[in-house]
Amino acid sequence: MKRLLVANRGEIAVRIIRAARDLGIATVAVHSTADAAAPHVRLADTAVEIGPSPAGKSYLAADTIIEAARAAGADAVHPGYGFLAERAAFAAAVADAGMVFVGPDASVIDQMGDKVRARQVAAAAGIPTIPGTAAGVADLAAGVAAAGEIGYPLMLKAAAGGGGRGIRVVDDEAGLREAFGTASKEAAGAFGDGRMYLERYIRRARHVEVQVLGDGADVVHVGERECSLQRRRQKMVEEAPSPGIDADVRTAMTAAAVRLARAVGYRSAGTVEFLVDDETHEFFFIEANTRIQVEHPTTELVTGIDLVAEQLRVAAGEPLRLRQDEIAARGWAIEFRVCAEDPARDFLPAPGRVGRVLLPAGPWVRVDTWLEPDSAVPPFYDSLLAKLVVWGEDRHSAIRRSRRALGELTVEGVPTTAGLFADLLEEPWFGTGTFHTGTLEQWLRDRREAAS
Amino acid sequence: MKRLLVANRGEIAVRIIRAARDLGIATVAVHSTADAAAPHVRLADTAVEIGPSPAGKSYLAADTIIEAARAAGADAVHPGYGFLAERAAFAAAVADAGMVFVGPDASVIDQMGDKVRARQVAAAAGIPTIPGTAAGVADLAAGVAAAGEIGYPLMLKAAAGGGGRGIRVVDDEAGLREAFGTASKEAAGAFGDGRMYLERYIRRARHVEVQVLGDGADVVHVGERECSLQRRRQKMVEEAPSPGIDADVRTAMTAAAVRLARAVGYRSAGTVEFLVDDETHEFFFIEANTRIQVEHPTTELVTGIDLVAEQLRVAAGEPLRLRQDEIAARGWAIEFRVCAEDPARDFLPAPGRVGRVLLPAGPWVRVDTWLEPDSAVPPFYDSLLAKLVVWGEDRHSAIRRSRRALGELTVEGVPTTAGLFADLLEEPWFGTGTFHTGTLEQWLRDRREAAS
Repeated sequence: MKRLLVANRGEIAVRIIRAARDLGIATVAVHSTADAAAPHVRLADTAVEIGPSPAGKSYLAADTIIEAARAAGADAVHPGYGFLAERAAFAAAVADAGMVFVGPDASVIDQMGDKVRARQVAAAAGIPTIPGTAAGVADLAAGVAAAGEIGYPLMLKAAAGGGGRGIRVVDDEAGLREAFGTASKEAAGAFGDGRMYLERYIRRARHVEVQVLGDGADVVHVGERECSLQRRRQKMVEEAPSPGIDADVRTAMTAAAVRLARAVGYRSAGTVEFLVDDETHEFFFIEANTRIQVEHPTTELVTGIDLVAEQLRVAAGEPLRLRQDEIAARGWAIEFRVCAEDPARDFLPAPGRVGRVLLPAGPWVRVDTWLEPDSAVPPFYDSLLAKLVVWGEDRHSAIRRSRRALGELTVEGVPTTAGLFADLLEEPWFGTGTFHTGTLEQWLRDRREAAS
Repeated sequence: MKRLLVANRGEIAVRIIRAARDLGIATVAVHSTADAAAPHVRLADTAVEIGPSPAGKSYLAADTIIEAARAAGADAVHPGYGFLAERAAFAAAVADAGMVFVGPDASVIDQMGDKVRARQVAAAAGIPTIPGTAAGVADLAAGVAAAGEIGYPLMLKAAAGGGGRGIRVVDDEAGLREAFGTASKEAAGAFGDGRMYLERYIRRARHVEVQVLGDGADVVHVGERECSLQRRRQKMVEEAPSPGIDADVRTAMTAAAVRLARAVGYRSAGTVEFLVDDETHEFFFIEANTRIQVEHPTTELVTGIDLVAEQLRVAAGEPLRLRQDEIAARGWAIEFRVCAEDPARDFLPAPGRVGRVLLPAGPWVRVDTWLEPDSAVPPFYDSLLAKLVVWGEDRHSAIRRSRRALGELTVEGVPTTAGLFADLLEEPWFGTGTFHTGTLEQWLRDRREAAS
């Protein structure tokens, strides 16, 4: 691999360019008109303007990007995350153009991108998925029978319904008998179909994901990340390792992730996501991501492994250099996503002009960012300004250092989520690591109510 | 320890304040009038102006600083490096004022600060010092006899002379017989004393130092640093570990450092410096430093141990938390001292006004600095602007990443040593790690000649 086109913008483009430069690979940046002065453009060896600011006309314009790569003499394309990263057709088109796509084969992206197929692969590899009825059940007797296999508590929802509409949680058979009739009648009224779907309900679930690396022949895992702190399914704070799983769960979950990746002959960095029942310690496969993740630096800080460099190496055809027994975690890392959003206005994205910027620095503080003083936050893209990633010898020390690092951060001109994190660090449940996927939203609701 | 006064400025004041904040200790900065707007002032909880810009009237004004500490309610004082760091009288005065001095006892500073006494302690602890005649030898016969014990090659210098004047290197007895008479005559003429001092000459010496940590009762070592790349005895680039010693030398040298520190009941972080004969692999004690060193981050990056935090902990009376068998190095770290000096004008210090500043960042790049855009580099202090410290999984990877990181560095307004480092990285002898204490100066001479 001699010349890599980075088909992305923002902090991840900067991150990928740095990894390529660290390996002595030349880099080609692409940019929309809005990003002409962005750091990823400056840090790359060459840069190509690919279109107007809206992503659909630039960062999502697959043909334009492939043409730019060809014209710039690139022999490989890294998609980053978002945009084209998990579009199998783009991966295939890059390969068809005679270049290396830095990611798994298009067929693997396809297979993992379809949740139903991904769960079938997982089940075939002996990895638990959340128990539920395969199809809808038509009446109470069938429901009770199915519930006996699924176990309580369970979720009852219209088989024909979508999203969260009309979901009922029942704790036992009595509850199911009480709820089924009404729910089925509502479903029949709303969708013309009274069949119900039953699925195990996890009252307190953690979202934990396992980082894997494969070369198409072999796969290793690089430990897990705790990603339960979410708002509207968007992660806000991540850590490595997870404070909420024990050694047995860790061993079983990482082995399951490796099995899944092996089953598809995985090449590149990937993530296998699980829900963990905080009460029973059972874990269930949710989905797999065939891209580098936003939160990958937490894994890097505890393991010393450059995940983007490893992606580039295996994409170039090198076999995996890492042996499972040589991969070890040291200490604890926490990542904070600093976004240009206004927490006081329901996290409304807040593009605008940034004035003074002071970034935290010093020992064991890493900031992955595209932010510079006196620059513009364009309204066209996601609101992520910077990832503040802090390492400590243990979780307690990482939290204390996070407090310091957040205190050093100044971004003038746009509201950010940083102030929220300073408060979060003081919450006892954060300090003890006892939270689940609903905790952050509940906390935000409580704050909103306390403030009003 | 509740409130720490940091009796220093520049990057080390910033570094110490960060360590204290990481531990939840409040900080008091002191500053001269020139440093009123410096980052260490802003990052500390409170700041006290202690006098005019020349260090003698501010950063070296021991009484003023102790008074400022008392007035600010500080219960401890960290001296950093330079300034008052190794003045036993200051350590004693801090203790007399009822505060904790973050460093060893005044008596230990005294003992280690006196080179002759330090070598006596080392010799008593069974640590080799450079073989030489205890006193001058008066005639050739005595010289030949002494040389038989010291070994060749050796240095012949006037016992009454100082500095490097009239030093002759002789390779064998024939050379000694040829040189002695003339040298002795010259010495008699110059100093009225013809006695000669003989010392083993190390043709290719490495400067390697061992980091130790003690709590007054126990001592551990935290590995070694390679510090051979010097100009006029000033280190310019340091690494951890050393590329020039093997496992046997490492084991023996670190054990020797621990023995020495144990012999004086060492408390705090300290460094034991050795010269290593690159041909024979013998090592010799040179001196011990009772302060935190400029190059300490290299050790931190490979071990994950926060040396300044450990200093603070043992100063507060905590026993050493680190067990020798738990201290392990991972990968390689290199530090570059970016100074406001003009390499084209014999490294003339170049204070002035700094304009645009872009600092390297991202994975495994740490910059310890006080530098900010649009700020002044005052002429009163040392010229160190920033320490760029880079980690890699091995030396090769650290060098490649250094290349990238140096490429990201921009400092406008004053000349710096950074451009030199970019060239240094391309030298084959740097790449292979085959250099000694004379290599950098020779390289600089060669460049000067090639340019003229």
